[in-house]
Amino acid sequence: MNAPLTDSTFALTLALLFLAPLAIAGVALINTGLGRSRSAAQALLGNLAILAVTVIVFALVGATLAGSQPGAAGAAGLSFQLAGKSWNWVGTAPFLLGGLGAAPAQAQLAVLFQFLAVALAAMLPWGSGADRWRLAAGCAAAAIIAALVFPLTAHWIWGGGWLAQLGQNFGLGAGFLDGGGAASVHALGGLGALAVVWIAGPRKGKFPQEGLSTAMPGHNAVYVLFGALLALMGWLAWNAAGAILWLHAPLSARPVNALNTLLTAAGALAATFAMTRFRFGKPDASLCANGWMTGLVASTASSGMVTPGISLLIGIVAGVITPLLVEALELALSIDDPSGAISVHAIGGLWGLLAVGLFAPQPGQLIAQLVGIATLLGVILPLFYLLFALLNHWVPFRVDPDGERIGMDLHELGGGAYPEFVIHRDESYR
Amino acid sequence: MNAPLTDSTFALTLALLFLAPLAIAGVALINTGLGRSRSAAQALLGNLAILAVTVIVFALVGATLAGSQPGAAGAAGLSFQLAGKSWNWVGTAPFLLGGLGAAPAQAQLAVLFQFLAVALAAMLPWGSGADRWRLAAGCAAAAIIAALVFPLTAHWIWGGGWLAQLGQNFGLGAGFLDGGGAASVHALGGLGALAVVWIAGPRKGKFPQEGLSTAMPGHNAVYVLFGALLALMGWLAWNAAGAILWLHAPLSARPVNALNTLLTAAGALAATFAMTRFRFGKPDASLCANGWMTGLVASTASSGMVTPGISLLIGIVAGVITPLLVEALELALSIDDPSGAISVHAIGGLWGLLAVGLFAPQPGQLIAQLVGIATLLGVILPLFYLLFALLNHWVPFRVDPDGERIGMDLHELGGGAYPEFVIHRDESYR
Amino acid sequence: MNAPLTDSTFALTLALLFLAPLAIAGVALINTGLGRSRSAAQALLGNLAILAVTVIVFALVGATLAGSQPGAAGAAGLSFQLAGKSWNWVGTAPFLLGGLGAAPAQAQLAVLFQFLAVALAAMLPWGSGADRWRLAAGCAAAAIIAALVFPLTAHWIWGGGWLAQLGQNFGLGAGFLDGGGAASVHALGGLGALAVVWIAGPRKGKFPQEGLSTAMPGHNAVYVLFGALLALMGWLAWNAAGAILWLHAPLSARPVNALNTLLTAAGALAATFAMTRFRFGKPDASLCANGWMTGLVASTASSGMVTPGISLLIGIVAGVITPLLVEALELALSIDDPSGAISVHAIGGLWGLLAVGLFAPQPGQLIAQLVGIATLLGVILPLFYLLFALLNHWVPFRVDPDGERIGMDLHELGGGAYPEFVIHRDESYR
Repeated sequence: MNAPLTDSTFALTLALLFLAPLAIAGVALINTGLGRSRSAAQALLGNLAILAVTVIVFALVGATLAGSQPGAAGAAGLSFQLAGKSWNWVGTAPFLLGGLGAAPAQAQLAVLFQFLAVALAAMLPWGSGADRWRLAAGCAAAAIIAALVFPLTAHWIWGGGWLAQLGQNFGLGAGFLDGGGAASVHALGGLGALAVVWIAGPRKGKFPQEGLSTAMPGHNAVYVLFGALLALMGWLAWNAAGAILWLHAPLSARPVNALNTLLTAAGALAATFAMTRFRFGKPDASLCANGWMTGLVASTASSGMVTPGISLLIGIVAGVITPLLVEALELALSIDDPSGAISVHAIGGLWGLLAVGLFAPQPGQLIAQLVGIATLLGVILPLFYLLFALLNHWVPFRVDPDGERIGMDLHELGGGAYPEFVIHRDESYR
Repeated sequence: MNAPLTDSTFALTLALLFLAPLAIAGVALINTGLGRSRSAAQALLGNLAILAVTVIVFALVGATLAGSQPGAAGAAGLSFQLAGKSWNWVGTAPFLLGGLGAAPAQAQLAVLFQFLAVALAAMLPWGSGADRWRLAAGCAAAAIIAALVFPLTAHWIWGGGWLAQLGQNFGLGAGFLDGGGAASVHALGGLGALAVVWIAGPRKGKFPQEGLSTAMPGHNAVYVLFGALLALMGWLAWNAAGAILWLHAPLSARPVNALNTLLTAAGALAATFAMTRFRFGKPDASLCANGWMTGLVASTASSGMVTPGISLLIGIVAGVITPLLVEALELALSIDDPSGAISVHAIGGLWGLLAVGLFAPQPGQLIAQLVGIATLLGVILPLFYLLFALLNHWVPFRVDPDGERIGMDLHELGGGAYPEFVIHRDESYR
Repeated sequence: MNAPLTDSTFALTLALLFLAPLAIAGVALINTGLGRSRSAAQALLGNLAILAVTVIVFALVGATLAGSQPGAAGAAGLSFQLAGKSWNWVGTAPFLLGGLGAAPAQAQLAVLFQFLAVALAAMLPWGSGADRWRLAAGCAAAAIIAALVFPLTAHWIWGGGWLAQLGQNFGLGAGFLDGGGAASVHALGGLGALAVVWIAGPRKGKFPQEGLSTAMPGHNAVYVLFGALLALMGWLAWNAAGAILWLHAPLSARPVNALNTLLTAAGALAATFAMTRFRFGKPDASLCANGWMTGLVASTASSGMVTPGISLLIGIVAGVITPLLVEALELALSIDDPSGAISVHAIGGLWGLLAVGLFAPQPGQLIAQLVGIATLLGVILPLFYLLFALLNHWVPFRVDPDGERIGMDLHELGGGAYPEFVIHRDESYR
């Protein structure tokens, strides 16, 4: 299925993987800007700490279970037999990246890709828990993602696991297809965010009474919008690297796929802009940034699989649903998600995965995609809720009320992010 | 003329095009920092919205007219006969990027390059109209640039149009040479900015009386200077990709050209630093950032064509003229250009194009460059003024006085960029 | 020793060198965020000006003395005879990069690498002198680094100089090994910072009395932490390019080395996080960012030479020593280093160089590394002190007390970085 990478493709993919962290940097900046100023240092330090924790834990444990190094020793993983088929469910790669230096080029790049992927996935809940989720708990949750949840999911999809085998086992298209991590990064991280938000509860003052919600705008719209702009570049690189590594796409199609990424994001921003303008009279800057990001997330699944025209359409749908979802989660379900990761990454990722099924030429692909989506919603989300609820007993998620009042920075770090600037004392939030 | 790209060159150019948007991100951050704090969210959202609009419109309309895909079907374009010569004036590429996936590698990359180019060009007027130009009008103007003005210019220069044919038709050197978009991006965008500023008029309070100008410093010098630093990286990539795609330069000369880019920017910053220090007693941070950017813009034309020593000289000239021009435009012509795009991008681009002619070894190149410059000033600038003056009747450019007073953020978006920070109430600006 | 680069390796290295300036951008942002708000524009403009000065001076003078273009004409340099051995001490490359366009690919890339290296090295003292070091003096010091100190060091290590010859002359391993500039960039720049801080003295109010130190937190933790995140990407590219150019490492090992970089940084952040949490009760955001950077700096020497497990260990040590060093320098030696460059870059670099010796398989490598370290401490540091003390007579380093009180921005630039924001008037700092 996958021929060895040429030197040129290897070199390009490596350069792309060094550019891809702009997606991580962009998301970290968005997470920071959408929270309160009194939590800004904790928000961004948390993103760095989560990056460190996931990298260490994935090196120690996760990479072994993910076993997503095509062609490397031990990558085959463990299987059981059910219904006359072999179900490959977990990887068995060497401990602490042993032997990686001697592995084929593609295996090395695949491992590097996954380090970035698990870090990004683990950052998504952090943004949703902003302003009340404790650093220690955020890091512990990231460790769980890096040790268990991401490795299993990645193995199922990228490591020759049962979701990848849906094609050859049941004739469902090419098996579940996730070019850049729409499932294993974005839907996974976004569903983790949902579990966190359920467990940590809303910020104080967010829902003063049943069905009423207080607007708590992010403290720096420039961080949010600039993060969205940087993220575009990360996504261009990320989607291209993913297509090469996981879809075994030829080099020659990368420019068109980059245009697809651009068009999906552009369509989404334009749609959210128009939606918020017509609904509220004025476009909403934060929601537009979120719409743009939802487009990028959707493109993670689709940019390597569809035409430019379809990409624009996928983006427009992403941009239409973003403000509706954010509002619905907030008003109907009383979910307080400062970064919008649930709408942007969970729903955006699932929409992209569905779109791949809707627009794929091969028969059965839609069913394969639906099986993957059902697995994320039916297995990964409950698993997250269970693990995080257990964790919450050992490492309480929620900061104490006094800490929330004075801000996470002062409470958890002993100092604010902006010690010289005068900040409004807005009583309505206290 | 242009041999097919090798795999290595293709891979490099693609990676460069994914890095080049740092030029866009840098310019967007500069635009934001040089405006007022009360317009910061609108400024940056506008840059994102303009990026989205141009990408969509260029995919739907502009790419067809630009037809700048060397070797692709339909790229030849339409010509008429005049003075015994064939004048190729517009492209006829397939609609909505049709067939692009099957086009030669170089054609795909050329199209991707132009998507970035048109987005950057359309962002330049936005910065000049800061603090008073309405979002809807800015997006409409961007649509005009993406649908018509940029495609025509790009076709003339890069798509085998009449400016490119000046060499073979009239023996003028190698025809009009514009390696990275000094004409089609920077001069074009900067001249569009001039038309916008004429039509929208200066910010209230900028010119309290004839010949007097109020300093309105940008609200965040860190954004401005950091944007300038990020832009350097975008330019290194942009200039190298442009030289490969439009000058058909060999891979081996890229490092020297990168040094040329560095030296032009460095010479320009040093010159502006010295100029402002001697004129005002102290160096001016904003003008230094502008000088640096003028150097980068000039290098867009010249970095692939001259030696390091000449590059330094070109930069020094760019840095000397920047503060003089900014002052002259403001005091002599009462032009209020917060981002300085007219001086930086229009004049910097034209200077770079002229320098290519001055220092080119081949005979006739200077005349070819002058013909191109005359076309920009004599055709593109009036065209912009005409189109934007018409647009202004349908979508008024200028915000109403009350909106300007409370700031574009509150007026157009319903909320500010920094809701928790205390801002000076500076009466002199109200 | 070094085979000609393949086209793919050339293309990759060039792309990496265009990405590497993110290390420069990250350090500039950290420098700015760790200083006072009243000096923010001067801090960042200074970084840009230093970049410009070093680029110009290195092109005019330094590149000739560095002569680090393997295979290029005149790169051999000058030698003298001592103890029966040839000691190559200075390069003699052509003036103003002459003939570089015709030099082998590797020579061109090596020169480009050194332009970035000297710029980064010269920025490190600037951060340590923040809030009281004058722009003119900072630029003059940068010129000295670019004209003399960096070129000599770079020639000794990378240009076939005597440190590189330790292997063939005295059988000390492979000679002094410095893959990415841990010595010639980080230790050099950090030792320059130490000399600057000694000469300029501490900020007013920093040490109100013997043995007491006032905390002067950076004015923007978001800039600091985001700079650290951007720096990661720069380092990934920088380390890979350095390994290709200076260690002649094959392309195939780059992914593992990138993981090493990640693991070293992650281990360092985790260790500093834990250290500061246990010592102070709460993790410290600035120190964590510094710990992360120390890890990156240490990886500059080691990432191409060790396994992932050892990389993690090197990072943990880096993260443990960072807060201890910062405290020791401040309390025991009354050194006021706002950016922490002395601990991060000098000690981090030296630790990485030592670690390469400790974990190298070849005999004698540890001694070679110790000789290099001794040279930095015994030759380069005194040289810096001498040159900067002389310079201080001509261009006084220290701003006058009134300038320090009103802030470097108002004093040196005539305007602040944040003219619209209300800043605390904190009397304790005045």
